[in-house]
Amino acid sequence: MRHVILCEPNISEGRDRGLIDQIFDQVRKVEEIKILDTSSDADHNRSVLTYIGEPEMVLSATQAMAAKAIELIDMRRHQGSHPRMGAVDVVPFLPIRGIDKQAVVEIARRFGRFLGELGVPVYYYEDAATRPEREHLPAIRKGGYEALPEKMKDPQWEPDEGPFEFNARSGATVTGVRFPLIAFNVNLRTTDAGVADRIARAVRHIDGGFRYVRAIGLSLEEQGMVQVSMNLVNYAQTPIPRVLETIRFEAARRGVTIAGTELIGPVPLVALHEVIKHYLQAHDFSMDQIIETALLD
Amino acid sequence: MRHVILCEPNISEGRDRGLIDQIFDQVRKVEEIKILDTSSDADHNRSVLTYIGEPEMVLSATQAMAAKAIELIDMRRHQGSHPRMGAVDVVPFLPIRGIDKQAVVEIARRFGRFLGELGVPVYYYEDAATRPEREHLPAIRKGGYEALPEKMKDPQWEPDEGPFEFNARSGATVTGVRFPLIAFNVNLRTTDAGVADRIARAVRHIDGGFRYVRAIGLSLEEQGMVQVSMNLVNYAQTPIPRVLETIRFEAARRGVTIAGTELIGPVPLVALHEVIKHYLQAHDFSMDQIIETALLD
Repeated sequence: MRHVILCEPNISEGRDRGLIDQIFDQVRKVEEIKILDTSSDADHNRSVLTYIGEPEMVLSATQAMAAKAIELIDMRRHQGSHPRMGAVDVVPFLPIRGIDKQAVVEIARRFGRFLGELGVPVYYYEDAATRPEREHLPAIRKGGYEALPEKMKDPQWEPDEGPFEFNARSGATVTGVRFPLIAFNVNLRTTDAGVADRIARAVRHIDGGFRYVRAIGLSLEEQGMVQVSMNLVNYAQTPIPRVLETIRFEAARRGVTIAGTELIGPVPLVALHEVIKHYLQAHDFSMDQIIETALLD
Repeated sequence: MRHVILCEPNISEGRDRGLIDQIFDQVRKVEEIKILDTSSDADHNRSVLTYIGEPEMVLSATQAMAAKAIELIDMRRHQGSHPRMGAVDVVPFLPIRGIDKQAVVEIARRFGRFLGELGVPVYYYEDAATRPEREHLPAIRKGGYEALPEKMKDPQWEPDEGPFEFNARSGATVTGVRFPLIAFNVNLRTTDAGVADRIARAVRHIDGGFRYVRAIGLSLEEQGMVQVSMNLVNYAQTPIPRVLETIRFEAARRGVTIAGTELIGPVPLVALHEVIKHYLQAHDFSMDQIIETALLD
């Protein structure tokens, strides 16, 4: 499998196990697709399925899954505490291996057209956005499903695909392409939460830090430590080692050491390849030298 | 593919392309096996094929390959500068992923019994050795094919499998299990070859260094640098970061910095996993979190 993308659809059903299974089974039954994670939240009344595979395979399975969700979920009866717009709510596609962003945008657009043809208004976001004000999900989703009837009268909210009219049963869908996000936490040997807070501000974009870092400082009361908790939203432009070493440097001038770090959830090999090259100074080390990559061909 | 082993048979034919292909095609035609490398040396008159796959698949393909080599190669006519004992000369099996040494020893033993039944005397070496004096290949191979008639009269050299008599046509075969070896070079910003030499001696086993490190110092005349050139023969017991940081420390006290490093040839992911955990201090980071590993299941 030379070309791999990841898809992580969020659907607006998190309570009825039978219904969720009927929908997600459209993806699970495809042998060539590997499921990384499934989660359902009853309070939010939404479910997320995470899977990877070849682009065409992921696209067709995601279409089948979405069609089933449109068939079975009625937004007029949906209640849940998480902001949402539609039965098929948000569907991000992510490049993982051997494929560039633009090729994945094409996949997302084909998915969008498919949903549009089913009568669902579709908005493209992040790297698939058609205009700057649609880049960020919260901006598109503001007001949620309940705000859709009004939005559908405002020319600014003409959908990228599908009818320019409120679909009461299915709501609207946001789809697009984003970079794999890496959840990375650095634990510091101090109980002073102010240290984590100041270091978080030193590395995060909003306060003058690295462009692709979001960070907050936390107390880990039980461990007697504090944590800089981060989302690295573009590991290619802001690599993990650069962030970690900056934190080490900032901690050292406060006399604090790093107790350890946590990589949370799935991480693409290419992000780790960068870590290896950086720390080993192995400038010419190629991913193809990793024996297991031969099995992915 | 949860369980992966590597096999790297050396056969005593490096000149007749047609013959080599007939032999190695027995492995190449197996779709589930991935070829990592092929090389033939006319002076040595030997060829090496490197491949990975599921243990049972690798075993049966290697058996077919060996049977073909026994059929086509006549050691009575073999000439070459490399030490060798048989048509199928040395066949190491290596654990790569999800399999322990003992299970790979079982594979090597089944391969040995197969060859024995074809009438070839077989010796087990390294982790498959049946006695300490057969652990190291040079000790078994001493004198090569030409010494076999005498060896076959000495009770000390009773083979582990196959007949205890000289097989003039096929010679003898050595098979066993060894750990993946990592070729790792560290380049130093000095032209003083003595620095590389002293650091090589600081890290290598023979002179008091790390148990699983073999090292020599070299001059890289063209680059105006020197190099500590190493084989790390057990990356689990002597991990890459520990060796690199020791070299950095030894270089620093001579006022020399590391210009870069080179990882040569194939490297198993598990060795790199250790590098990531070490430098990121990511104590709980699991290989299963690497997205691509899901594709190997």
